[in-house]
Amino acid sequence: METVVIALGGNALTIGGKLADAKTQLNIIDNTSLEIADIIGQGYKVVMTHGNGPQVGGIVMQNENSANLTPAMPFDVCGAMSQGMLGYHIVQGLQRAMRLKGHEASPVAVVTQVRVDPEDPKFKNPSKPIGAFYTEEEARALMAEKGYTMKEDAGRGWRRVVASPMPVEIIELKAIKDLMEAGHTVIAVGGGGVPVYRDADGDLNGIAAVIDKDLASERLAQDLDADIFMMLTAVEKCYINFKKPDQKALDTMTVAEAKEYIAQGQFAPGSMLPKVEAAVRFVEARPGRKVIITTPEKAGAALRGEAGTVIL
Amino acid sequence: METVVIALGGNALTIGGKLADAKTQLNIIDNTSLEIADIIGQGYKVVMTHGNGPQVGGIVMQNENSANLTPAMPFDVCGAMSQGMLGYHIVQGLQRAMRLKGHEASPVAVVTQVRVDPEDPKFKNPSKPIGAFYTEEEARALMAEKGYTMKEDAGRGWRRVVASPMPVEIIELKAIKDLMEAGHTVIAVGGGGVPVYRDADGDLNGIAAVIDKDLASERLAQDLDADIFMMLTAVEKCYINFKKPDQKALDTMTVAEAKEYIAQGQFAPGSMLPKVEAAVRFVEARPGRKVIITTPEKAGAALRGEAGTVIL
Repeated sequence: METVVIALGGNALTIGGKLADAKTQLNIIDNTSLEIADIIGQGYKVVMTHGNGPQVGGIVMQNENSANLTPAMPFDVCGAMSQGMLGYHIVQGLQRAMRLKGHEASPVAVVTQVRVDPEDPKFKNPSKPIGAFYTEEEARALMAEKGYTMKEDAGRGWRRVVASPMPVEIIELKAIKDLMEAGHTVIAVGGGGVPVYRDADGDLNGIAAVIDKDLASERLAQDLDADIFMMLTAVEKCYINFKKPDQKALDTMTVAEAKEYIAQGQFAPGSMLPKVEAAVRFVEARPGRKVIITTPEKAGAALRGEAGTVIL
Repeated sequence: METVVIALGGNALTIGGKLADAKTQLNIIDNTSLEIADIIGQGYKVVMTHGNGPQVGGIVMQNENSANLTPAMPFDVCGAMSQGMLGYHIVQGLQRAMRLKGHEASPVAVVTQVRVDPEDPKFKNPSKPIGAFYTEEEARALMAEKGYTMKEDAGRGWRRVVASPMPVEIIELKAIKDLMEAGHTVIAVGGGGVPVYRDADGDLNGIAAVIDKDLASERLAQDLDADIFMMLTAVEKCYINFKKPDQKALDTMTVAEAKEYIAQGQFAPGSMLPKVEAAVRFVEARPGRKVIITTPEKAGAALRGEAGTVIL
């Protein structure tokens, strides 16, 4: 039975980037879950990961906004909260979809820590904005009081920025494997994982960082020795010359072609670029395996070779 | 190897009922984790559960307080968030404690749904207050708008109340068992579990309810066929004639005695009473097994027979 790691974008769970209420979020997940159930019905063993960018942003904002009433939790803890929230909804969506498609269901969400290296050069230049907007005065006070790095964000105000280091180790990997082998559909590495580092004693501690969800999912796909790594996003295929007259959708792309396109600047940073980079990493580390990039709606079709871009 | 299900109170993770900041919460968990590591060192297989009363109250308040900025999540989702938050901290605390005590560690937190019966008579008379205080006018508006049940709370204002139905089924039971059998220390059923019910199609849906954490843990202990069910709370032993001149700490209590004391009103509702009731349920369902009630600090000693009240 082939294993497929499926990474679902956090934005794919919003209404055009705007946070959904619980009912809407669950409806979106229900629709995607039908595709996942289709894939499980095709005979694949599925492990799901998900983003949390918009959702953890909302949780951070809720925490900051009530800090005078109840202790605001730091970023790593907010990430763990988002894993609880989205993990719960994805489990419910999968249970419903599996029942509708007539398959046995045993989805389970695991709180997942992902270790980063505090010496990662990315910590020298934090760039991922999180949480609410502040005035310059408020921002300077927060920087002084809490040691945050804050930057002006495109004229919209000041925001805290954190680093986006590489994922090094999935702490709960063995638990994920054990659940998989016992026949469960595991939901893990939510939001790229709760970012932790190992201190001098060897203990794990939370750290303020955003781990790219596609890179963390790629790490998981490698560690699980997955046959297929699939990233679900807003476009059905990768494009070159995107939004230009000679725009071209790609059915397949070799690693050599992908690297050439990356060098040409064909893919948008923070959007398609990290996905294609994650794809290259996976196929280089696991020759003969494949990566698929497509939309949640086309996930089932893509695994039948009828949609998406395949990176080989 | 004997299995022990250990239920840790949500209040035990606060500073006298007041929500702790992340660092303090982690420190409290670190201390309790040393006891859990001691128990694992004694050769027991441990499954941990935890309360979330104060913590989910904080999350509900954060959600309500920012409802004009970002969608407020309903109570079931807030419960799932609290499982992510506390599960993450407990995993970290256990990892640290196990390293300090020199044991192998593989703790893992599972998002857990617990099914209740929507026909449970408790739904007719909701009594568990959750979230923020409101004026009568605000409360009446919320009741009209959202269909909440709200009650005046001891002169402090109006609060939403929800039912506290019996736990019927632990949805992720098989995953918990599989992880346990693979050697993991599982953290599950946080806050009594995310409350769900099964609709006419057989699908699971969230419902606003508080499942008593001790009763849900007892359900888990029965389902796992645990040898020992331990509840960690604020007092080292159960007392009769509590805070009276003839107060007496109990080293042991038979089920018959426990029932007699319950009939006499010896145990405080919402505090020791549900624990003793859960203890009676467990010992009646699993004759020959035992229940221990003590503090987190005495957990290790209690398993060696040096502390706590044992219900046989």
